[in-house]
Amino acid sequence: MGKVTWKPGTMIYPLPAVMVSCGAGENEYNIITISWTGTICTDPPMCYISVRPERYSYNLIKNAGGYVINLTTSSLAGATDWCGVVSGKDHNKFREKGLTPVRATKVSAPMILESPVNIECAVRSITELGSHHMFISEVMAIHADEKYIEKETKAFRLDKTGIICYSHGKYFTAGEFIGKFGFSVKKK
Amino acid sequence: MGKVTWKPGTMIYPLPAVMVSCGAGENEYNIITISWTGTICTDPPMCYISVRPERYSYNLIKNAGGYVINLTTSSLAGATDWCGVVSGKDHNKFREKGLTPVRATKVSAPMILESPVNIECAVRSITELGSHHMFISEVMAIHADEKYIEKETKAFRLDKTGIICYSHGKYFTAGEFIGKFGFSVKKK
Repeated sequence: MGKVTWKPGTMIYPLPAVMVSCGAGENEYNIITISWTGTICTDPPMCYISVRPERYSYNLIKNAGGYVINLTTSSLAGATDWCGVVSGKDHNKFREKGLTPVRATKVSAPMILESPVNIECAVRSITELGSHHMFISEVMAIHADEKYIEKETKAFRLDKTGIICYSHGKYFTAGEFIGKFGFSVKKK
Repeated sequence: MGKVTWKPGTMIYPLPAVMVSCGAGENEYNIITISWTGTICTDPPMCYISVRPERYSYNLIKNAGGYVINLTTSSLAGATDWCGVVSGKDHNKFREKGLTPVRATKVSAPMILESPVNIECAVRSITELGSHHMFISEVMAIHADEKYIEKETKAFRLDKTGIICYSHGKYFTAGEFIGKFGFSVKKK
């Protein structure tokens, strides 16, 4: 069949590469970049992040019971990568990357002003899976940059933000538009 | 801050749009397209899919205790969208889309030959969240199309497969290469 078989691994891609902001007060504010994230339920809107317990942000998120998922773009790609590589033990990531913390409305963690979409999340449970613990969470509020809202249609154009994805160790822009959901059954 | 606040919703993007193949025997073989999927643990390699219990595939996956995640590409985009829109109650999706079921090695569900990467998954638990139930799963084996393995380096070039993503109701190719993980701290 022209295929090679590998031992089990993590091969679901492309994934988002989100900056998760956390901390209960300004002196704790930190950012960790995560691709082990996604939506797990539509109603109620729920999502998860999986984090290694040895990461500096792990206890910040666990103790505060909340965090913010900030979507990332081409112009944030350098900061996105860097916040996934260095530790908040050694760096003030907001200050060193010129990112602006903004108070959220439902959780104590800050939002990143420069991100086009901020998703406030409240932790509902933590599942210890192995290398990673999964924070199962409920979405509490969403904030979107109004400059991407079309005046006529009120549609939010996420595709105009320069949003990026992470695929098998590499970052990419979202590329060519293929079709809308349901395009395969649309009447011409 | 130039942001508008929305009520809670599902806004984590871009996500994969995978074809999940399921069924315990040829007469049951079906495909459901899912974006509520991702990696939840690196070691052991674990992932999830979230499925509405009223979907035809739900009981196929639950009863068999396994399924296959098949990554999707530009050339599979039409089939990917269609398999997310119509029901296996009314359609033989493999036959109608000319897709080839291939026996997997660890689960009873078939793999889709035309997909560049097949991920065999065994269900470990089901969490009932609301509209969707989350199948928490362990990756049992991976099969990759050998034509994307570079002869010299043995690297698997997922970025050469034409892999696609799903973002806020639209499908896109993975676009321009930005950098490898760690690029922000690499010595020049």
